[in-house]
Amino acid sequence: MTAYENLCKLAQEIALLGSTASTLGWDQETYMPAKALDHRAQQLAYLSAKSHALATGKTFRKTLDLALKEGAARGSKQAANLREWAYEIERASRIPTSLVAEESNITAHARNAWVEARKKSDFSMFSSHLGKILSIARQKAELWGYQDEPYDALLVGYERGARTRLIANLFDELQPRITAIAKSAVDKSRAIPSTLLRGKYPVAKQQQLNREVAESIGFDFDAGRIDTTTHPFCTTLGPMDVRLTTRYDEADFTSSLFGVLHEAGHGLYEQGLPAPEFGRPAGNAVSLGIHESQSRLWENHVGRSEAFWKKWLPRATEIFPSLRKLHLGDFMASIHRAQFSFIRVEADEATYDLHILLRFQIERRLLNGTLEVAKIPQAWNDQFEHLFGVRPPDDAHGCLQDIHWSMGGLGYFATYTLGNLNAAQLYAHANRDRKIRSASTSANYTPLLAWLRTHVHSHGSALLPSKLIAKATGHPTDSAAYLAHLQERFGPGRTKRDL
Amino acid sequence: MTAYENLCKLAQEIALLGSTASTLGWDQETYMPAKALDHRAQQLAYLSAKSHALATGKTFRKTLDLALKEGAARGSKQAANLREWAYEIERASRIPTSLVAEESNITAHARNAWVEARKKSDFSMFSSHLGKILSIARQKAELWGYQDEPYDALLVGYERGARTRLIANLFDELQPRITAIAKSAVDKSRAIPSTLLRGKYPVAKQQQLNREVAESIGFDFDAGRIDTTTHPFCTTLGPMDVRLTTRYDEADFTSSLFGVLHEAGHGLYEQGLPAPEFGRPAGNAVSLGIHESQSRLWENHVGRSEAFWKKWLPRATEIFPSLRKLHLGDFMASIHRAQFSFIRVEADEATYDLHILLRFQIERRLLNGTLEVAKIPQAWNDQFEHLFGVRPPDDAHGCLQDIHWSMGGLGYFATYTLGNLNAAQLYAHANRDRKIRSASTSANYTPLLAWLRTHVHSHGSALLPSKLIAKATGHPTDSAAYLAHLQERFGPGRTKRDL
Repeated sequence: MTAYENLCKLAQEIALLGSTASTLGWDQETYMPAKALDHRAQQLAYLSAKSHALATGKTFRKTLDLALKEGAARGSKQAANLREWAYEIERASRIPTSLVAEESNITAHARNAWVEARKKSDFSMFSSHLGKILSIARQKAELWGYQDEPYDALLVGYERGARTRLIANLFDELQPRITAIAKSAVDKSRAIPSTLLRGKYPVAKQQQLNREVAESIGFDFDAGRIDTTTHPFCTTLGPMDVRLTTRYDEADFTSSLFGVLHEAGHGLYEQGLPAPEFGRPAGNAVSLGIHESQSRLWENHVGRSEAFWKKWLPRATEIFPSLRKLHLGDFMASIHRAQFSFIRVEADEATYDLHILLRFQIERRLLNGTLEVAKIPQAWNDQFEHLFGVRPPDDAHGCLQDIHWSMGGLGYFATYTLGNLNAAQLYAHANRDRKIRSASTSANYTPLLAWLRTHVHSHGSALLPSKLIAKATGHPTDSAAYLAHLQERFGPGRTKRDL
Repeated sequence: MTAYENLCKLAQEIALLGSTASTLGWDQETYMPAKALDHRAQQLAYLSAKSHALATGKTFRKTLDLALKEGAARGSKQAANLREWAYEIERASRIPTSLVAEESNITAHARNAWVEARKKSDFSMFSSHLGKILSIARQKAELWGYQDEPYDALLVGYERGARTRLIANLFDELQPRITAIAKSAVDKSRAIPSTLLRGKYPVAKQQQLNREVAESIGFDFDAGRIDTTTHPFCTTLGPMDVRLTTRYDEADFTSSLFGVLHEAGHGLYEQGLPAPEFGRPAGNAVSLGIHESQSRLWENHVGRSEAFWKKWLPRATEIFPSLRKLHLGDFMASIHRAQFSFIRVEADEATYDLHILLRFQIERRLLNGTLEVAKIPQAWNDQFEHLFGVRPPDDAHGCLQDIHWSMGGLGYFATYTLGNLNAAQLYAHANRDRKIRSASTSANYTPLLAWLRTHVHSHGSALLPSKLIAKATGHPTDSAAYLAHLQERFGPGRTKRDL
C-alpha cells in the first residue's frame, strides 16, 4: 500500500467516527427521549475524543509526511486532499492542547450563562464569559498568524482563503445600497396586509407539499429525508444519507416550505459531493460561504421567484383549498413583504444582510481591540439604529440574540452574506445559459442543478472558495449580481404590484 | 484506582460502542433512507470490530484477572459482574478467531440463500448452507463443552445455566396437554366470526391508544419511544433510552396494540434494570427466557385479560366509535380466537408453543446427529402433522419460514416457550398478593410492576435465570402455572361465551 492509501484508510476511520457522531446528533435533535441526554453526551464525547486523537495523532502526521513525499498529479483529487490535510494539521498543531481544553471549559459555562443572560436580557451576566472567549480567540489568532488583522485567522476556519480586508470592502460597498433597498422594500410593504397568507394548514399536508417541492428540485429521498426540529438544519450521516429538518407553523405553510428549500439547498450540495471521496477534503463541502450560497440560491432565487410559484401555487391550492381566493400577484407580494425586525433569524430577504454587516463590524473591532466587551450593547444599539432607524428595546433583542459567540464562533457571521453574494453570482451566471433560463421559467430546475453539480458540488474542497467562484462565474465574488437581484426584487423602482 | 474500577472503565467503553451501534441499528430499521445501507454497514462493522477487540483483548483479560484476585463481597453486584465477565471471557476464549470468521462468512451467504430459498420455497437451495452452519455449531459445542449433549452448549448462550434435558422434560410434559388445549380452543373458535373486529382504524388514532396503554402499564416515554417497523422489536440505546417498534394493520387495531404490549414488556424490563450498572452484567438482562417472560406477561396475562379490557374497551370505543356495537364478551372471544396456522410469527397464544416444541425437537436431533439436514423437510412436516393435524403445503410454510438458522441461531427457539412458562409462573405468584390482585382487577398495574421491578428487573444478571425464578416464585420453572392459565383461557371446560 502507498502512504496515500494508508492515509485514506485513516481518513475513512475518522469519517466513520464522524458520521456515526452525526447520526447520534441527528437522533438527539429529532427523536431522542429527554432522559437519554446524559448517556448521549457520553457517547458523543467518546466518539469525538477518538476521532480527534486519530486526526491529530502521530500516525496521521507521519503518514501524511510520507504521502506528501510520494507527491500527486497536479490538479488531481489526491493533490487536493494532501494540500488540505497538510493545511488542517499545520493549523491544528499551532494550538496547544491546554488552550483547546481551556476553550471548551469556558464555552461550556458561557453557553449556560448566555441562556440565562438572554432570558433576563442582561448583558452584564454574559460579558465576563465573552471577555474570556474573546481572549482565547485573540490568542488563537496570534498562534495561527494572519496577514492583515486577527479576524483573518478566525475567518479562514469557516471560509478557507478568505481575507477580512476584501470582505470589509465588499460590505462597505453593500451597506448604503442595501440600506436604501431595504428602506424602500419596508416602506412599500406597509401597504401589503400581513394576514393574506394566514390560514389553517395541517402539518401532514405541509409535509406532502414540501416533499413534492424538494423532490422537484432534485433532492433524492432515497438518500435523505426531512424530519421536524425546533431549529431547522441539514446534516450528512454518510455519502448517501443527508437529513434535513424543518419546523411547522400551522397558520402559514410558507414558513416550513422556505425552510425546506433552504435546507434542501444545503442537502443538494451534500448529495452532489463526490461519494468515493467521502471523508476526504475532495469529498467535503469547501466552506460555509459556498454552502450558504446553495441554500440561499434555492430558497431565494428559485423558491421566491414568480416562475416557481406559477407552477407551485396551483399545486398548493389543490392541497390547501383555502388558497383559491389568492392571486399570484398578491401571493408574491406577501412572500416579499419586508419589515425591520430586531432578530436576525426572523429577518426577511430584504433586510437580512444589515444584521450581518452589524455583527461583522462589531466582531472585527473586538478582535482588533478597538471595542471593549463591556461597550458592546452601546455599540450594537447605536449601529443598529444607524442601519435600521430603530433602537433595540433591550439586549435580548440586541447583542444577546445569537448563540454563536457563546460557542466561541467569532468570525462566522460574515459567511452568511458571502453566501448571499455567491448565490446571486452563481444563479445569474448559470442563467446566461439559454437552456437553463428557459427551463427555470417553467420551474424545471434539472438543468440548473446539473450546472451546480458540475461547477460547485463535484469539486468538494478541491477548489478553494474564491477559485471555485472565479472558475464558475468568470470573476471573484463581487456585489453586482446580488445588488441587481435585490434591486429588481425590492428596489425603489418597483411598484407594490411588482413585489 | 482498583483493578475492578479499571475493568468498569473498560466495560463502559465497550458499552458506549455497543449502545452507539444499537442507535445506528435502530435508525437503520426506522428512518434510514435506502441508499444509506452500504455506509451504515461500514459504520456497524467498524464499531463491532472495536468493541470485540476490547471485550476479548489482553487488557480486559489481565484487568479481570487482577480484579478477581482483589475479590468482592459475596452477593454483591461486583461479585456478579466478575463472575459473568469471567464466564464470558472463558467462553469466548474457547472459540478460535478463524472459526468466528468462518462462521460470519458462512452466515453472510446463508442469509441471502435463505431469502431466495424461501421465496422459491425450495429447501435444497438452502440445505448446503445449513449443513455448514450446523457443522460450525457442532464444532463450537465441542469447544465450549457440555454436560449431557451438544444442544446444552448452544442453549446457554441464550439462557445462562439452562439444561437441555430439563427443558426436554418440561416440553414432553407440555406437549400432550397443550395439544389438547389448542385443539379445544381451535374447535370452539370455529363458532366465532373472524370479522368481528375488522374495521377502519387510522394509524394516528392507534398510536394514541397504544401510547396511553403503554403509559398506563408504566412505560416511561421520557426514557423511550415507539416507532414503526416491518418487524416489531425493542432495543436499548442507553440506560434511559429504550425504543419499541410496532406495525399497523388499519383494519385491526389490536394487532399493533398487542405488539406494543409485548415490546413494552421487554421495554419495562430494560427500563427497570439498575442504571448505574449499565454495560455491566448486573445492569444487563439475564437471558432471553426471562426477557420473553416479561413481554408475554404484559401481552398475554395482562393485555388479553378481561379486567384489562373492561377498562380499555370503553376508551378504545371513544377513539374508534365504530366499536360501540361490540360487547365485551364478543371482544374477548375475538382476541382469544385460535386457529392452526403454519407460520409461527402469526400463531395465536393457544397454538404458539406447538411451533416451538417442533423446532426444539428438530434442532436437538440435528445437533445430536440423529437427523440429517437433507431430511429436515420430511421430519418437519411429519411432526407438524402430528402436532397440528395438517401438513405444511410447502417449505416456505414449513422449515424455511424462520430466519434464525440462517444466522447461526441454533439453540434459541426453546427460550420462547421458557418465556411463556416463566411469565405464567411469575404472574400467578405475584397475584397471590392481595393488593396486586385487587389492583389488577381494576387494570391498575402499578403494584404488579413494582413487584416485577423488585423480583426480576432490579437483579440484572446478578441472579441466573433458574435462581431468579426460584427466588421470586419459590420454585424452579415448571409447567403448572402456564397449563392452568391455558386451561382457564382455552381449555375444554370453557364455553364459547367464556373465551
